Amino acid sequence: VPRARCQAAIVSVGNELLFGQTVDTNAAWLSRALADRGISVLRRFTVRDVEVDIQEAVSAAARGVDLVIVSGGLGPTPDDITTASVARGLGLSLTADRQGVEVPQYAQLLTNPVGTAPGVLIESGQTTIVLLPGVPRELEAVFEGDLEAALADLAGPDAGSVHHRVVHTTGIAEPMLADAVQERLYRGANEYAAGITLAYLPSLRGVDLRFSITDARGGKVEERFDRLIEELNPALVPWRFEAEHGDLAEAVATALERSGRTLAVVESCTGGLLAKRMTDGAGASKVFVGGVIAYANKVKVAQVGVTDEMLEQHGGVSEVVAKQLARGAAKRLGAEVGIGITGVAGPGGGAGDKPVGTVWIAVSVDGVVESIRTHFKGDRGSVRERAVQAALASLYRRLMFERTED
Amino acid sequence: VPRARCQAAIVSVGNELLFGQTVDTNAAWLSRALADRGISVLRRFTVRDVEVDIQEAVSAAARGVDLVIVSGGLGPTPDDITTASVARGLGLSLTADRQGVEVPQYAQLLTNPVGTAPGVLIESGQTTIVLLPGVPRELEAVFEGDLEAALADLAGPDAGSVHHRVVHTTGIAEPMLADAVQERLYRGANEYAAGITLAYLPSLRGVDLRFSITDARGGKVEERFDRLIEELNPALVPWRFEAEHGDLAEAVATALERSGRTLAVVESCTGGLLAKRMTDGAGASKVFVGGVIAYANKVKVAQVGVTDEMLEQHGGVSEVVAKQLARGAAKRLGAEVGIGITGVAGPGGGAGDKPVGTVWIAVSVDGVVESIRTHFKGDRGSVRERAVQAALASLYRRLMFERTED
Repeated sequence: VPRARCQAAIVSVGNELLFGQTVDTNAAWLSRALADRGISVLRRFTVRDVEVDIQEAVSAAARGVDLVIVSGGLGPTPDDITTASVARGLGLSLTADRQGVEVPQYAQLLTNPVGTAPGVLIESGQTTIVLLPGVPRELEAVFEGDLEAALADLAGPDAGSVHHRVVHTTGIAEPMLADAVQERLYRGANEYAAGITLAYLPSLRGVDLRFSITDARGGKVEERFDRLIEELNPALVPWRFEAEHGDLAEAVATALERSGRTLAVVESCTGGLLAKRMTDGAGASKVFVGGVIAYANKVKVAQVGVTDEMLEQHGGVSEVVAKQLARGAAKRLGAEVGIGITGVAGPGGGAGDKPVGTVWIAVSVDGVVESIRTHFKGDRGSVRERAVQAALASLYRRLMFERTED
Repeated sequence: VPRARCQAAIVSVGNELLFGQTVDTNAAWLSRALADRGISVLRRFTVRDVEVDIQEAVSAAARGVDLVIVSGGLGPTPDDITTASVARGLGLSLTADRQGVEVPQYAQLLTNPVGTAPGVLIESGQTTIVLLPGVPRELEAVFEGDLEAALADLAGPDAGSVHHRVVHTTGIAEPMLADAVQERLYRGANEYAAGITLAYLPSLRGVDLRFSITDARGGKVEERFDRLIEELNPALVPWRFEAEHGDLAEAVATALERSGRTLAVVESCTGGLLAKRMTDGAGASKVFVGGVIAYANKVKVAQVGVTDEMLEQHGGVSEVVAKQLARGAAKRLGAEVGIGITGVAGPGGGAGDKPVGTVWIAVSVDGVVESIRTHFKGDRGSVRERAVQAALASLYRRLMFERTED
């Protein structure tokens, strides 16, 4: 008889989480890491650095699950009380090991390769309780190190798991995308949709569609995703992009490499964000030459061939200047493709026909320059993020369209 | 008799939170917003879109608190079951209003000015239960609109609140900083520390010290913080920086402005991240001229005066090249201060005496160039983040040291 699917709960410890000064990214990371290993998370608790609160949460979390992961409060400072609190809550005594680390009775230590506080694993009745450090990279390192083997035992060889397939889109708002997709679902694709759930995950960069199949021991998961997505594809294709880690910059780098071209950028209002996106992954060095951040007008003039006349006649935020930034990027830095971005990211600087959020984007491919004027809503950070995404999407579509034309 | 301080709990509803594909930023926002209004959050729960799970969490959350805020699952799609689940859990019947919105018996609707799903407020015994939409800007709009007045009643005119003071540090690891601070706490500063709690909040950028006073109706909160921090200051001053939003780039911009200088940067391995950091806030435009991302060696040669000889003799990651990047930044872009960064961010590219994580940072102030060689641990993203922070810290300390010398 195959055992029931392994289920888990997470407890995050830390006053700073409840004061709202820190966002709990560990909890999301843990949930994803557990799901990837066939373990589903039923609930999460967040509590203060208070002994009785930690003990109550661990006890409530443990109800009916195989695994409880507690993160935070393992460090060396006096406000770190998680290990001692959990041990006392379970009635276990504490001893100090040779390094002075407090270890509960019967517990196993999990090596921390990137920090000082090791993880702790305690078997308590039917439940495995694991304590991990709260610093994200330490938590991840302990998880992917010593904890990995223990989890494999727990999930068992027959563990069902949640399978996901994500389709990335950019440039279309969630309601419009959902309308187009739902219409196709009702018009025939629904015969392929049985047992597959669909979630729309919007962000500043676009909307991801996440298709999920739960506990598909019957196999053929990938074929089932393929069939459904093929049916929906006509609604997705104008907006869709392919990138292993979901980053459009990755997709652009791949498309550039396939086309045998390199890229240079000149940014004004986005101030380096486009170049940063292109260099976030190591892979872009084959296609990304570099860039200029032409923040002050004098840099636009000295570095990329914008003239004082252009600036006087059209202003820094104009089609003429954007096109010259794209052309100058390619020419001065020696690349086949240039992108130019100039706009008003706010909060100040907006005026009459150029309100905050106005951004000109120009893309030069082999000397042929195309430009778009966009208007983005939101604060400075959102405008910058959206402008960079739109610039990447412009180039991506130009390269992909060219490829299908060939 | 003044009533006890108002306490709250938060319940976040949504499968996507437990799959880990969405980070729960609402919970942090709500915690902060409640603290600002004198309401402290004791615990948080995260549960699936499952009726019994929602009901159990709301019931557990309500124990001993005045307010429970439930977010998520109020939308129009079939997986939105929060309102009905909570109503049935409390034994309240449901009716549909004129717009077709489900309203629990005795509940008050809270207008949603930016979306379709209104909030819901239910008085249940001693506890107020509030349901808010899960889309962040809708949640925030309902909170800051109709909910605001209700919360003021709840917290009462005499509500104490949690007061914080944060001291930012960078360039020192948490255990070392904690040792230095605790030593001073034991050596006399402790007479000022009564009633003040201290938390260490480490990140890639540094360690924040957060001092907190709870329920200080006696007043003099700021003076109490001042006195304690003054006593601790000798341990903090080499690492401390001042910035309203906690960003070292802000502190650098302020120090530059005070000194009447402007800044230009040339980045290789950090690929635009330094320029992005300097332009994240709108304020930097007075002091930040621009930069060059010299990712390919040919850009280092053409744009900032690195010679082929330098590259051949010393390599792209070298003191000589870093210094030329800093000098070239200032000279070519027309600024008094230049920063140059070159290094191996990884994961590939490391070799013998220049392993992954090796970064040269040079800072030129009025033509005088100083450089440091650093070695950062961690993945590509961490190395880049730490390198930028170290470069900003170098410049900040040079400007501050010069100021105290005057």
